Order: sequence, then C-alpha cells, then structure tokens
Amino acid sequence: MSAASTQIDSPTAQIINGKAIADSIRKEIADEVKALQEKYGKVPGLAVVLVGTKGDSATYVRMKRKACADLGIQSFSTDLPGDVSEEDLLKVVADYNANEEVHGILVQLPLPKHIDEQRILDAISLEKDVDGFHPANIGALAMRGRTPLFTSCTPKGCLELLKRSGVAISGKRAVVLGRSNIVGMPVAHLLQACALPFIIISDATVTVVHSRTPDARAICAEADILVAAIGQAEMVRGDWIKPGAAVIDVGTNPIPDASKKSGYRLVGDVAFSEAKERAGFITPVPGGVGPMTITMLLSNTVDGARRTFEKAAAGQ
Amino acid sequence: MSAASTQIDSPTAQIINGKAIADSIRKEIADEVKALQEKYGKVPGLAVVLVGTKGDSATYVRMKRKACADLGIQSFSTDLPGDVSEEDLLKVVADYNANEEVHGILVQLPLPKHIDEQRILDAISLEKDVDGFHPANIGALAMRGRTPLFTSCTPKGCLELLKRSGVAISGKRAVVLGRSNIVGMPVAHLLQACALPFIIISDATVTVVHSRTPDARAICAEADILVAAIGQAEMVRGDWIKPGAAVIDVGTNPIPDASKKSGYRLVGDVAFSEAKERAGFITPVPGGVGPMTITMLLSNTVDGARRTFEKAAAGQ
Repeated sequence: MSAASTQIDSPTAQIINGKAIADSIRKEIADEVKALQEKYGKVPGLAVVLVGTKGDSATYVRMKRKACADLGIQSFSTDLPGDVSEEDLLKVVADYNANEEVHGILVQLPLPKHIDEQRILDAISLEKDVDGFHPANIGALAMRGRTPLFTSCTPKGCLELLKRSGVAISGKRAVVLGRSNIVGMPVAHLLQACALPFIIISDATVTVVHSRTPDARAICAEADILVAAIGQAEMVRGDWIKPGAAVIDVGTNPIPDASKKSGYRLVGDVAFSEAKERAGFITPVPGGVGPMTITMLLSNTVDGARRTFEKAAAGQ
Repeated sequence: MSAASTQIDSPTAQIINGKAIADSIRKEIADEVKALQEKYGKVPGLAVVLVGTKGDSATYVRMKRKACADLGIQSFSTDLPGDVSEEDLLKVVADYNANEEVHGILVQLPLPKHIDEQRILDAISLEKDVDGFHPANIGALAMRGRTPLFTSCTPKGCLELLKRSGVAISGKRAVVLGRSNIVGMPVAHLLQACALPFIIISDATVTVVHSRTPDARAICAEADILVAAIGQAEMVRGDWIKPGAAVIDVGTNPIPDASKKSGYRLVGDVAFSEAKERAGFITPVPGGVGPMTITMLLSNTVDGARRTFEKAAAGQ
C-alpha cells in the first residue's frame, strides 16, 4: 500500500472493510439461527462435499465448516477421493437432497476433469442450491418479475458491500469486468435488477467488459461502480478509475513476493495503491470481498432453512 | 420515409430486408421438414394455445398456424375462453407435454390477469419450450459453457438478421435499449455469448440501457450495434446513432395517421428516416424483425422435433 496522497484535491478512497461488514452480518445470522431454533426447535444445516485434496479447495471447505460451527449451523461433510466416480458423487448429492436436516448443499468446485460438473450441479435440489449455480436459479435472477431461491454468494456479497457502504446504485453507470458464471454474469444482473423484492432494487446501467473488449480501459473509466472479476493481477490501473467511483475488487491473484515465507502474496484485479487515489470507495485484497463470500453462503443456508421450516409449519 | 440524403459523405444505410431473409430461412426449414419426414416418417408438430379473443393475439396465432401449414409442420390448436381457469389451462399444457406428435408448445402471451403466467410457462416441458421462456432455458442462455434447448424467437431473429447481413459482432460495442424478458435481456446475452456452439459466437461488449438510464442518447451513440426494444415510438433519433452502426429496431408502436383507414400506422422505436442517414445497416418497421419472429418459432419447432426423432432412433 502506498502512502496517502498529499494532493488536497484528491483525497484517498474510503476503504470498504469487508471483514468488519462480514462480521456484523454474521452476528445477524447467528441471532437468526437462535430465533429459528427457538421457534421451530431445529437449526439450519449445510452439507459441504469435497472431492480430492487439492490445496485451495480443502482450505475453503475447512473455512466453510468452521464458519458454520461458529454460528450454530449444523455442518455435514463428505470428503471423497479424487478418483471418485460420477455416479458415486451423484449418490452423495441425492442422499443430501433427501436429508431433511440439510437445507443447503455445496459441492466445492472445481471438480476433477473426469466428472461432468454440469450434471452434478443440476442434480442439486433447487431448494438446496445455496451456491445459486442451478440454471433455473440463474434464469430467475436474469428475468424481471422472478426471484431466484438463491443468489450466488460472491455476487450477493458485492452488492451487500455497496449497500452497506451507502453507495447509490440506481441510475448509475456500472461496469463489470469479467463474464464468468460465478461472478461477472450474476453480478451484472444484480446491478441491473429492477424487481428482486427481497434482495435489492439496483437499476444501474450495466456494461460487461471481457477478454474480447478492445477498449476496456476507456469503458471502465466511465463507471460510477466498477466490479473487477477477471482474474488478472492488477490489470485495472489508476487511470481506469473514474474519480469518486466505487471499486469492488473480486480478484485474488498470487504474485511472487520474496519477502513472504510462502514466496508469494495475493493481489486483486485492481492496482490498489493507484486506484485508491482516485476512487471514492474501494475494497482491499485480502479483506474486501473474500470474507463476504462465506458469509453469504451462511445467509443463503439460513434462508433455505427458514423457507423449509415455514413450509412445514404451514403443513405444505 | 424522407428523400435520400444529398450529402455525398453520408450515404444512406443498407436496409435489412427481414421479409426476404425470413423467406429464405423458411425455404431452408421446409427442406429440413421434408428431410425429417423422409428419414423418420414423421413431421414436426407445434401446438398453439390461445386464451380469449383479444385482437392482436388472435392475429398472431392465426399467422403462426398458417406459417406451419405453409412449411409442412403439423399444427395443433386450442382456443380457450378468456375466463378459462388456471387449472384447465394447465391441463391443456400437460396434455400437449404428453402428446408425442407435439414438439413445441406455445401459449400466446399476454394471459388474462386471473392466470399466473409464470406457473403456466414453467409447466411447459423444457423439451417443448419453443418460446425459450422457461427459466432453465434462460439460465442456460446466460451461462458460459451451456447451450439452451431453445432461444427466444425475437432475440434469435435479431442475431440472424445481423449474421445474414454480414455485420461483424465480435469485439464490437453493442447497446440494447430495453431489458424485457422476451427481447432485451436475452438479446444482450446472445450478443455477448462466447460459447453457444450451435448458435453463434458473438463476443460483443454489451450495455443494457433502460428506463432508469439518465443518458440513454450518449450511450446509444457509442454503439456499433444498437438493438432498440423499449416500446417507445421513434424514441431513438438520428443523433443517437453512431455513423455506420447496425440498427435493429424491434419496436412496433401504433401512432395516429389520418391517411390510413385504420386511423393509425406502425412505427418502430427508431425514427427511421433520420436514422437511415447515419446508420450502416437498419431494419425497417414493418418488414424488419417482425417476419423473423415466427420464422424462428418454426425453426425452434423443427430443432425440437429433430432432437426427439434422433433420441427415439437411438433408442433413448
């Protein structure tokens, strides 16, 4: 991080503290878990399925299970060997679909190449799709007048960061850098959404910039809100940022750093020290979007549980 | 239509003749219907359900049935009274879902207010959703690496007009004016699509402009490709058009015209006489997008039939 700017007409950005916002939301979730337990005598349950032992995935899964425990959410775990068959994995999903104590099912991605990822994701019950990756949930997110049962965790976390930082969205120009299924595409829909009653009314004018866009810098420079999710270390430089813009940096890219024991450190898709001199709001990496993703997963699990408990209580 | 421009440096646009392009595609479809009949001994079938007798809907339905007959597609019709119950309408859909001679089901929209449109559309079998309005088909359209079984007819028609007019899409700036479920949103996904193997590789950089966009004119003026689908008569003026841009006008708005027997005439969302002086390509209204919509419906029906015949032949 560079020293604060000395130019009086260029104050540095307000840093959006994702850790603090996530902590505050987790307290709200813990309260709701208690309230559900008091009202219905049951707690929300999340099943996390891990295939293989690839380092990052195992770490993420451990963090998810710990977060559940911290909040009183029951955690179900299945760790499968990296050479598990597609049929055996489908069986695990089917069992969790049928398990009444499980309200959310998460199969950690990526899966080994011999497994058809689409087939696995489509097998997760719509009512337990806490990752929001089922096409019918994505379709409902894209369509006016529909509300998805679940919205993907990282995109939902980006919107929460904007909302809780007091960033106005309606009528603004937003640019999403990246068009992935898990961040770019759903975050574009959330920013444009006009009728997601329980989530947000956004109404931004959204442009999606991607690897085939010739003039990415010029388009980003028009954005009042810039969400960077393209997986390129520090691609977004200071002069890509419109003065005063809100910048949400979803990237986590390892770059060599001899001063670290690991030999690397994580940076975002945005050159933070340059961008914070121009932005009005900016998320750091780490400590920005990262802590929100798991928090939204917990929030989705509690939403799923509440719907199930309410339905059961209504005798449906 | 105004007189041709007299400025030598401002030639008028190439008019995209939707009628001629649609006729040529219909010939291809008729050939395919014959080929399917020869190979499998069966023809594609389309069921069209009309509720009530509202003028426009009845006209569209008549046109769809006639188009089927012209091409050798078997047409199934159900006309229901405007006060039909939701349950009775669902029963009609269920019967067509089960009917092996029907490969596409179209329930003409809008439906009367006492009927839950979402419930009806979701009841249509995914494999027969020739309108492409089912959330799972919309989700597959929005997601990279997925291919929807069907793509909505008007958006698909817009892309065909661009493709068959030789308009390059990859790397271009595209602006979609309007964010409806039936045109704006899906056409934005088609223009941005990077991996719809059997449809198109588009790769445009897309901005969706809507009723809450403060500076619609300025954003449209940056578009190499402009698709207007906002339902406002002649909202897009000449100075909204980037010189040389391709303009696809989806609007059909009635405006008073004393010289017509009906007392009105149809105009698009684009002020045609002004826009054609700046655009490189432009669709007229009528005779542009209109003839493509029914043609794409026929094309989707044949696609659905081919998939069914192939599956049956493979013993699936």
